[in-house]
Amino acid sequence: MPPRRVIGIDAGGTKLLGGVVDDTLTVHHRVRRLWRGADRRETIDIILDSVAEVRAAAPDVEAVGFGIPSLVNGERGMSVWSNHLPIDDVPFRDLMSERLGLPVVVDNDTNAAALAEHRHGAARETDHAVMIALGTGIGGGLVLGGKVYRGAHGFAGELGHMVVDHEGADCPGNCPGRGCLEVLVSGNAIGVAGHGAATRDPGSELGRRLAEGGQITGGLVTELAHAGDRDARVVLAEIGRQLGSGLCGVINALDPEVVVVGGGGVAAGDLLLGPAREVVAQRALPPMAHAVRIVPAHFGDESAMLGAALLALDGIAR
Amino acid sequence: MPPRRVIGIDAGGTKLLGGVVDDTLTVHHRVRRLWRGADRRETIDIILDSVAEVRAAAPDVEAVGFGIPSLVNGERGMSVWSNHLPIDDVPFRDLMSERLGLPVVVDNDTNAAALAEHRHGAARETDHAVMIALGTGIGGGLVLGGKVYRGAHGFAGELGHMVVDHEGADCPGNCPGRGCLEVLVSGNAIGVAGHGAATRDPGSELGRRLAEGGQITGGLVTELAHAGDRDARVVLAEIGRQLGSGLCGVINALDPEVVVVGGGGVAAGDLLLGPAREVVAQRALPPMAHAVRIVPAHFGDESAMLGAALLALDGIAR
Repeated sequence: MPPRRVIGIDAGGTKLLGGVVDDTLTVHHRVRRLWRGADRRETIDIILDSVAEVRAAAPDVEAVGFGIPSLVNGERGMSVWSNHLPIDDVPFRDLMSERLGLPVVVDNDTNAAALAEHRHGAARETDHAVMIALGTGIGGGLVLGGKVYRGAHGFAGELGHMVVDHEGADCPGNCPGRGCLEVLVSGNAIGVAGHGAATRDPGSELGRRLAEGGQITGGLVTELAHAGDRDARVVLAEIGRQLGSGLCGVINALDPEVVVVGGGGVAAGDLLLGPAREVVAQRALPPMAHAVRIVPAHFGDESAMLGAALLALDGIAR
Repeated sequence: MPPRRVIGIDAGGTKLLGGVVDDTLTVHHRVRRLWRGADRRETIDIILDSVAEVRAAAPDVEAVGFGIPSLVNGERGMSVWSNHLPIDDVPFRDLMSERLGLPVVVDNDTNAAALAEHRHGAARETDHAVMIALGTGIGGGLVLGGKVYRGAHGFAGELGHMVVDHEGADCPGNCPGRGCLEVLVSGNAIGVAGHGAATRDPGSELGRRLAEGGQITGGLVTELAHAGDRDARVVLAEIGRQLGSGLCGVINALDPEVVVVGGGGVAAGDLLLGPAREVVAQRALPPMAHAVRIVPAHFGDESAMLGAALLALDGIAR
């Protein structure tokens, strides 16, 4: 019997990653799109179009799973509120199911990522894990007592909106908060800090890239840092320490066995996680600091896509 | 059949509250002691002495439950680490059981408080509740999916050590953290802020009390505020807003139905909770901000004592 296949879509804050995934978690066809400021209708159209693209290559797919950067009402499959995409109050599951003619499952993107890492990745064989995804913003997902924890209304896990600087700057996106962890730490925050470093020191490699008209993104900072650039490494270390501060609070509150760091930002690897681990070792409550592991996502920035596919595979197996 | 009775002891950071509690949760005899800088041996002696005092009035008690301000290893009944009492690495359950000749149950103080509020108090009929106790420091307890959540090692719920000011002051007590919520908000923090206000304005009532040689405690600030003193109300409102900032993070992370605020600090009532609610309404992610209730503990500062008694009653019912 050939493996059953579904489509997994990670609709992130900046870009969409999708793929055809079989029940061995092998990815057969990938698709990638940027939103580039799309409004609600354009966003939905980009999603439908990317599904159509991979489906053309794999007409046998039986269902589609979506991870979206929203507070999701699971019962109704509703996107209730999103910090970075214009999809508030969209009846996501029903809309997609009707337009695609396939069974559709929808969950918060980082809940989906936590599911993939818990079942098959870096949080395998643990019952208490925290997933944090560094992308446009920060996504979070909680595995508590062996299951993804969703809270009273399905909205739990928004770790990017823990307040780490109570008199800090307004949170970007639609969040009405101030000094949220997401302001200080995310894929975007790495880019912002890199831009600041480039401006302060025009003679640095970051400064030269900026002068040449390049955009200082988190990806560029990470690339230069891996190549040995000192200023880029300083930027990552500072963001890593701020990540560590935020993780101290999560760890003290939840006593997890493992914190899995994923999303695009984890490409920085130990240049980011090393300083985060140091701050946790120094500042979290000692019995928890000693016990917890802080590790990169096994599936890198594909955890959410694979988790969305797992949800769809669970759906067709029922 | 007469009701079965146990002793419940809340060994807080500054004082001990205890009582004889029956299975209708009626408290028959109360005891109260201050540690006044007691070392490890003196702390144990004060606990034993206070149990002896209430036991003399109620020789029929069948067990003793303790809530202690420690990270507790529940399996071994061990006090692993405490921020405010010198009882690290004390085999608390076995020691007390041997010295008292009675069955003993031990838990973290605010886990016990959460249990009492969940079964019979302000979090009754909810499955997702956060308990936060404002005393010497901040204790926390989590009810997730209908049960007290303990994390991977029994240590979860230390909400006072979420970082709300990542470049902030060193946390008092034994915590190695910086800018923990406990630095800004607690019964003690109300006193510290009141002292600051008294120093800045010697002509105020707080200033006069200080000049008369009085100590500016959280209790005094609260008493003056309830009597209408404007400066004392300003102090409580500011602490309340900081509490609100911390609660934004907890709410965004955990999506609870209710946040129950207890401990001695809750004597301030709406003078503290009103500003906290305002900040949550303004700054937490809107769907969660709209759904959550922030309420005072039904059992005031006796939640932990009653919760400890409930644990002991559960033990003898088995």
